[in-house]
Amino acid sequence: MNKYGLHGKFNTQKGKADELAEILIEASQIVSKAKGCKLYSISKDPSEPDAVWVTEIWDSKEDHDASLSLPEVRSLISRAIPLIDGTPSRGQTLEVIGGFGINEN
Amino acid sequence: MNKYGLHGKFNTQKGKADELAEILIEASQIVSKAKGCKLYSISKDPSEPDAVWVTEIWDSKEDHDASLSLPEVRSLISRAIPLIDGTPSRGQTLEVIGGFGINEN
Repeated sequence: MNKYGLHGKFNTQKGKADELAEILIEASQIVSKAKGCKLYSISKDPSEPDAVWVTEIWDSKEDHDASLSLPEVRSLISRAIPLIDGTPSRGQTLEVIGGFGINEN
Repeated sequence: MNKYGLHGKFNTQKGKADELAEILIEASQIVSKAKGCKLYSISKDPSEPDAVWVTEIWDSKEDHDASLSLPEVRSLISRAIPLIDGTPSRGQTLEVIGGFGINEN
């Protein structure tokens, strides 16, 4: 196995993390149908109330990058931007080499 | 959804990351049968050759903690310890609130 992983944080405007998380959960439903998406998990770190974490696994970086051009994803991005504080960092890029529970579809 | 997430790094002795990764992939096969394990993904960060990342999702912290007592897991831990440089940090604890591709079994 050799897949493309991302683990990144979005800092939000104060009190906007739940709203951003809802948008990201909508995004997960859209990318579930995108080519190469294996995992798109949305989390909160209890120590950081104004932030949302997204952990993704894709077959390839190309599949991930292509998903950002989907009209439904672009629409969600435009809804998310006003909630975000600062520029979202690229996040940590990982090379996923194996494991259990990584979607095979 | 409300699940228990962990994202953590093991620093290894120089040149030992591949060996540790193999042990962690064995561990993923064992915990795939453990109660409450949804994801156990092993990754490399290309910028850190002497480290291995593990990203886990469990139904609960209790399920995760219980898995550490399984005899097969304890045996793998004892094989892994000599490869690790320093004390493994607890890693980042996350509250997984939703997403796609999180095992439902």
